[in-house]
Amino acid sequence: MDKKPLILVSNDDGITAPGIRVLVNTMKTIGEVVVVAPDSPQSAKGHAITIDDPLRLKKSDIFDGVEAYECSGTPADCVKIARSVVLKGREIDLAVSGINHGSNASVNIIYSGTMSAAMEASLEGIRSIGFSLMDFDYDADFSPAVPFVSSLSKWMLENQPEGALLLNVNFPKLEGDLKEYKGMKLCKQANARWVEAYHEVEDPRGRKFYWLTGEFQNNDPDPNADINALNEGYVSVVPAHHDLTSYPALEGNLKEINKL
Amino acid sequence: MDKKPLILVSNDDGITAPGIRVLVNTMKTIGEVVVVAPDSPQSAKGHAITIDDPLRLKKSDIFDGVEAYECSGTPADCVKIARSVVLKGREIDLAVSGINHGSNASVNIIYSGTMSAAMEASLEGIRSIGFSLMDFDYDADFSPAVPFVSSLSKWMLENQPEGALLLNVNFPKLEGDLKEYKGMKLCKQANARWVEAYHEVEDPRGRKFYWLTGEFQNNDPDPNADINALNEGYVSVVPAHHDLTSYPALEGNLKEINKL
Repeated sequence: MDKKPLILVSNDDGITAPGIRVLVNTMKTIGEVVVVAPDSPQSAKGHAITIDDPLRLKKSDIFDGVEAYECSGTPADCVKIARSVVLKGREIDLAVSGINHGSNASVNIIYSGTMSAAMEASLEGIRSIGFSLMDFDYDADFSPAVPFVSSLSKWMLENQPEGALLLNVNFPKLEGDLKEYKGMKLCKQANARWVEAYHEVEDPRGRKFYWLTGEFQNNDPDPNADINALNEGYVSVVPAHHDLTSYPALEGNLKEINKL
Repeated sequence: MDKKPLILVSNDDGITAPGIRVLVNTMKTIGEVVVVAPDSPQSAKGHAITIDDPLRLKKSDIFDGVEAYECSGTPADCVKIARSVVLKGREIDLAVSGINHGSNASVNIIYSGTMSAAMEASLEGIRSIGFSLMDFDYDADFSPAVPFVSSLSKWMLENQPEGALLLNVNFPKLEGDLKEYKGMKLCKQANARWVEAYHEVEDPRGRKFYWLTGEFQNNDPDPNADINALNEGYVSVVPAHHDLTSYPALEGNLKEINKL
């Protein structure tokens, strides 16, 4: 590209999270950066949008030399308002979200606020990438991810791939025997699930409350499933889309429904 | 089936909405019904779940002869807590959500709380259907939908279709020339989108706020796209799933990413 590409940055951990600072600093080396991110943590907000309340948008100077705003809405709201109000329809060359503190691999894409920001951009026809590090620690070390975040973002800008508007990128935590990443691996979403449980507690008045807990079960033997690639020490890259149609199901016995 | 099937009912408009009452009454004619629904409206909550706060669950007697609970969480939370806490792992034969006041056709599935309840059930391996009427009116007439809700639910219970765990069902509003539905039509999710705008307002202190508005644009000429079937007077039925992988994209130039 001749002119500097315009890159929109958002996240779900909120504008003050360390992960978005790493992402902003990396994107500054690639293009013109505009940040619109939630003013409070929005993890697991799925693809929520705010329709019954107005949104507040406030200029922020926490990133040196970068135009930034904090928004009272969800990650998807941030992308919508960035496009309509902040950028007033200027063409966005790439939207990136994260770097999330915690995994968004496999079905976590469904619950993820980070991925909903990226998904919202893709719904609007913008190429987008969500980045997540499998480490919930506030002080997690994002630095080993930076070269991959940079090279993948540049590749997306240079290659403008067709029909691959949204990438879900996850980084394993470097610990134990895993000293460095083995590279990036193009993957499919693993067929895995959460098996939930609720922790029952009583409030001071004796009323019951329930806290969600649970464990993640991977049932996918495919080495190209993202969870398995992550376990092998790769950075997983899943091309995703917002067409939820199950096309195989259109060819099965569901056709009988047309005659009901 | 020999024994009465167990049917879980939820929604996103809240347990007091007229639409869920119609759904509960219809399901009572088919099986044993348990209701766990939000205690307040949860429209457009996407697939949000509550992880940083505890949930409250309260028994409700608003449906005659039906075990029902209102929950302080999102639609997806309702399904999770129904399964773990209320039904304690009992096998659920069918989960239904709705009937929503308003359309969830096409990409609205992504934003919809109604569909997130159904999607959550499908993530847990339960066959599920989300029902929506394209009429936002609190006093909308759901009665023309009832025979289709009933026959489709029975069909799902009797046929247990493979690989079609989640159905997104929308009913057009009967008005003008459309006096009755032309039948159900198996469809794909239309390639449509919201074009957003924000309405700028000032609060009493002169600070700006923004309300989301927008118009829905259907760009899909395929007669089998749900929006087009609805425009023709059909009840649209889209089989959906939670694997967001774009499989065509796995075969394209994205493979270069493996070498970056």
